[in-house]
Amino acid sequence: MGSLLAQIEKPNDIKKIPRNKWKDLAAEIRQFLVENISVTGGHLGSNLGAVELTMALHLCLDLPNDKIIWDVGHQSYTHKILTGRKDEFGTLRQFGGLSGFPKRSESDCDCFDTGHSSTSISAGLGMVHARQLKGENYTVAAVIGDGSITGGLAYEALNNASKINSNFIIILNDNEMSISPNVGGISSYLNEIRTSESYLHLRDKVYNSINDDLPKVVTGIRRAKNSLKQLMIPGMYFEQLGLTYLGPVDGNDTAAVVRALRMAKKVNKAVVVHVITKKGKGYLPAERHPARFHGTGPFDIETGLPKHTGNKAGYTNIFSTVMLKLGNRNSDVVAITAAMTDGVGLKRFQNAFPDRFFDVGIAEQHAVTFAAGLAAAGLKPVVAVYSTFLQRAYDQIVHDVCLQDLPVIFAVDRAGLVGADGETHQGIFDLSYLTSIPGMTVMAPKNKWELSDMFKFALDYGRPVAIRYPRGEAYDGQKEHREPIAAGKAEILTSGSGIALFAVGSMVETALAVREELLAHGYDASVINARFAAPFDRDMLRSLSEKHSLVVTMEENVKSGGFGEHIREFADEEDLPFRLLNISIPDRFVEHGSVSVLKDRLGLTPEKITERILQSADSAKDR
Amino acid sequence: MGSLLAQIEKPNDIKKIPRNKWKDLAAEIRQFLVENISVTGGHLGSNLGAVELTMALHLCLDLPNDKIIWDVGHQSYTHKILTGRKDEFGTLRQFGGLSGFPKRSESDCDCFDTGHSSTSISAGLGMVHARQLKGENYTVAAVIGDGSITGGLAYEALNNASKINSNFIIILNDNEMSISPNVGGISSYLNEIRTSESYLHLRDKVYNSINDDLPKVVTGIRRAKNSLKQLMIPGMYFEQLGLTYLGPVDGNDTAAVVRALRMAKKVNKAVVVHVITKKGKGYLPAERHPARFHGTGPFDIETGLPKHTGNKAGYTNIFSTVMLKLGNRNSDVVAITAAMTDGVGLKRFQNAFPDRFFDVGIAEQHAVTFAAGLAAAGLKPVVAVYSTFLQRAYDQIVHDVCLQDLPVIFAVDRAGLVGADGETHQGIFDLSYLTSIPGMTVMAPKNKWELSDMFKFALDYGRPVAIRYPRGEAYDGQKEHREPIAAGKAEILTSGSGIALFAVGSMVETALAVREELLAHGYDASVINARFAAPFDRDMLRSLSEKHSLVVTMEENVKSGGFGEHIREFADEEDLPFRLLNISIPDRFVEHGSVSVLKDRLGLTPEKITERILQSADSAKDR
Repeated sequence: MGSLLAQIEKPNDIKKIPRNKWKDLAAEIRQFLVENISVTGGHLGSNLGAVELTMALHLCLDLPNDKIIWDVGHQSYTHKILTGRKDEFGTLRQFGGLSGFPKRSESDCDCFDTGHSSTSISAGLGMVHARQLKGENYTVAAVIGDGSITGGLAYEALNNASKINSNFIIILNDNEMSISPNVGGISSYLNEIRTSESYLHLRDKVYNSINDDLPKVVTGIRRAKNSLKQLMIPGMYFEQLGLTYLGPVDGNDTAAVVRALRMAKKVNKAVVVHVITKKGKGYLPAERHPARFHGTGPFDIETGLPKHTGNKAGYTNIFSTVMLKLGNRNSDVVAITAAMTDGVGLKRFQNAFPDRFFDVGIAEQHAVTFAAGLAAAGLKPVVAVYSTFLQRAYDQIVHDVCLQDLPVIFAVDRAGLVGADGETHQGIFDLSYLTSIPGMTVMAPKNKWELSDMFKFALDYGRPVAIRYPRGEAYDGQKEHREPIAAGKAEILTSGSGIALFAVGSMVETALAVREELLAHGYDASVINARFAAPFDRDMLRSLSEKHSLVVTMEENVKSGGFGEHIREFADEEDLPFRLLNISIPDRFVEHGSVSVLKDRLGLTPEKITERILQSADSAKDR
Repeated sequence: MGSLLAQIEKPNDIKKIPRNKWKDLAAEIRQFLVENISVTGGHLGSNLGAVELTMALHLCLDLPNDKIIWDVGHQSYTHKILTGRKDEFGTLRQFGGLSGFPKRSESDCDCFDTGHSSTSISAGLGMVHARQLKGENYTVAAVIGDGSITGGLAYEALNNASKINSNFIIILNDNEMSISPNVGGISSYLNEIRTSESYLHLRDKVYNSINDDLPKVVTGIRRAKNSLKQLMIPGMYFEQLGLTYLGPVDGNDTAAVVRALRMAKKVNKAVVVHVITKKGKGYLPAERHPARFHGTGPFDIETGLPKHTGNKAGYTNIFSTVMLKLGNRNSDVVAITAAMTDGVGLKRFQNAFPDRFFDVGIAEQHAVTFAAGLAAAGLKPVVAVYSTFLQRAYDQIVHDVCLQDLPVIFAVDRAGLVGADGETHQGIFDLSYLTSIPGMTVMAPKNKWELSDMFKFALDYGRPVAIRYPRGEAYDGQKEHREPIAAGKAEILTSGSGIALFAVGSMVETALAVREELLAHGYDASVINARFAAPFDRDMLRSLSEKHSLVVTMEENVKSGGFGEHIREFADEEDLPFRLLNISIPDRFVEHGSVSVLKDRLGLTPEKITERILQSADSAKDR
């Protein structure tokens, strides 16, 4: 650790660092970030870009009294370093260790938990109103990226922020990227600001010479420009929404951001401070490959190359290949992502079929209703999105897709436990929120071949279908079981008696391991691959009752509203004579940690599941 | 029916009406609307405002080949009249009759079902891309109100619409109202356009003299204005988003809208046509009381007064009173609505505590995250919203409220069947999507006094709480049962044996009626008021098993993921020795019709429930 960073042990310690050492401190922080993240993995690019911006915030504000809300929150590492948490970075994103996102439970300097995009302005506006109503006195700053600002929630908040007559600082951290490069009108607009003469000529002049009477100065500048140039006066878009705009400011110049923040604090309304930063700044591999270093595993600092690479292909890779095949086979197939082209595996589809690929930005709601429109007009849209982010389009799935029974296919990636990203990112609710929607078919593949078969099935099926699959390596066992997919039909993998394991998707692999354990205890369990979580296979359940006294449902989803509850409802209603045991994630939020540690703690390992089954089988005997 | 309207029997018949009769036709349509809606009830104000706009669309487009997407869709009556459905208006919003919203199943001139706000631009953009990819040739027009455009989904869509190089007409139907008057920056911005010199002077001039070379003309107008006026050039906001803007146009002048649409069709990108209409136009009571005539029951045409008024207060009224009391008692109580001040009953709270009342516009997502911010900073926010619209904030409830365990109270109005508004508006999913969220407490009152008690409880409870209650008159029986609310505890209303009816909220009244029916069959059923759908009363269920062999859960929610399934999961896991029957809405969308007709068809009347219970009790005996 550098000598300056060593002096920062608690909030506000940064204020002791003399102005002429700010650059050195920023360099030390960058070195610290690269060294630590190269070992633990984590979000790198966004944090390297936000070093000076974060320093400036901590220089100008008084933590924890003042409030900083980090939109998404993956860029909050420097904030954590400056608020007494730097010694915990060795445990970053590990079970029981430092979270990769702001957490109120972790520090009183984290005033609002984040993880999903575009929430910060809404939350900050709430705090501003609360401050006014309670007669308190503190500064509220929301830090939002130019990617997050494409989310409708952020727009709704900006629209409401225009009404306040009290200070609220909205820092637009513009690095020209979300995870994928940004898209759409607002992005082009910001790009025009960045490249316009007004930015290039004014950025120093305005902020070096300006006096406190800001509105007048801004008006003065406006008057001085002719009418066409006026169109390019930075920030008019925001001014038209009723917000004050300051900028653009070089966000990688601590002193410049400090000056802008001092001005912003004097504005008695919502003020957008537009700072331009460089994602990955100071670490060449991250500057060159911003998407790869958005979130990274451990890597070699010299080369920038990942230290460990999985041997098996992940489900995302398989999906990527499947989409290419489907795209070749059927020209009606189109693909939609919400700012996750690489993450969901659509890069190859994009390259092959640029006209049939749509990155809509961080805009899951639009992604889904847009897909409904595409489907209503005769195309076959596939919306690829992480389970946790699809939550944001719940109403659109209900109202725009399922109510009209439109053939939209949802590729629900990262379904189940995701691990290190923690509570905000676990995909453990989709079986609940999707299976309760009338007309929605929900599938989950047991292995990589079935993923492919399911997409082919869904394409022909012509109704709303969600296919959920987990993060990480795809199971490549059970290749021999590849019966054609039939609507609502499960598949028998091993035919035993007494106990039947009825497993959804990722839990099929676990069920096969459980079967092995049970064999050692003298039970010859059947293993059934559910394939369909909704509608589930009623005939299979009826037939299971012939030779089985215990059916065990297994799913990587919370219990409430999940697969197991639906099965129990049916089995009980039909008086099926077997006993039922539902294995699922307990009904609570699940913290960060490796998936294997989490599964162990949640009782989802083959050993722990076997134990519960044996208990249940014993108690059945006792009755 | 007027003589012009009589000539319009199928799509495109309007084109036979000569231009000099357009005004007369509009007058006939208005008379038709007022006469019919005064009998059936329905949406009046928005339809009266959109007559000429709709006529112009049908004059310029070729239905059903061309596509019109009606945002929200309550303004589509004239569209229905012009597409061969005028003779069905006597059945409007009745079971089996004409829907109050566009329905693909009703006419091939309805290309996309709507009901919730802000979907039309997304859907239309999907159709535009599909048209391009399939090499087809038709016009796509989305008609969106200035209220709907405050929804984040519409912004996400506008942001994406900027990218296309193909015609897409977005008609901004600006009547200065959603249901409540509009709020926020975009509303002020549109207001500036409406009142600016440029509109007042240019509205005729531009559209009367303009040639086809539109972009040049617009540029010309811009050049001619000085720089400060420039700020008020209409539509720059949209232009900055990368869209072409035409307008403002007098939307109650058919010829003016026709001219604008003909121009708009020539633009090879997304073009916003800003038309200004008057809500309620032509019927004085509706012009004067736009909120009351947004959606109305039958009324007297002469006076404008409602024909039937309920005798009992509705739950919304009770909530209104409760909020006033809570607001007086605790200065930390604040209230939030999403453009539904009257609908949810917050007008009195707004009048009493204007600083503590927030109408955020049609922006449910922001409403919830904003409430989370208010709560994180020490206030006690109550978010009042219809069950069906709360769906849009599912992710915000999970991620911003429950994950941080913040004390936000959700007043979930219109939970259960809503009747005439139909499929898009039934509040039949909230028990599913809310009870599966960890940490969310979900309550439902049996009667009007309990509604009050529950809000008081929720305020003290200090955690996320949703209180759901139905549309319409509040049950005022069982006043004698008013035990204090205890967290997670149910309430015994009648203590019998054999059969226990375990009912949620609105179904308690039904359960009491069922009890009477069962008495006639010799069963002395217990009636339990669940009070809490989550967490439900586990001890009560255990104790019920002592004297009851059949427990009947009753809820006004789909079965999948609802109360009954959770109860069954618990009862079965604990081996509670009673048989369970779950009474709920079948897992499907529910069409429009009166609540009583719907309940009958869904088997939710006391008679039909009793029948099912008797069957179940008999089959239990047979075992």
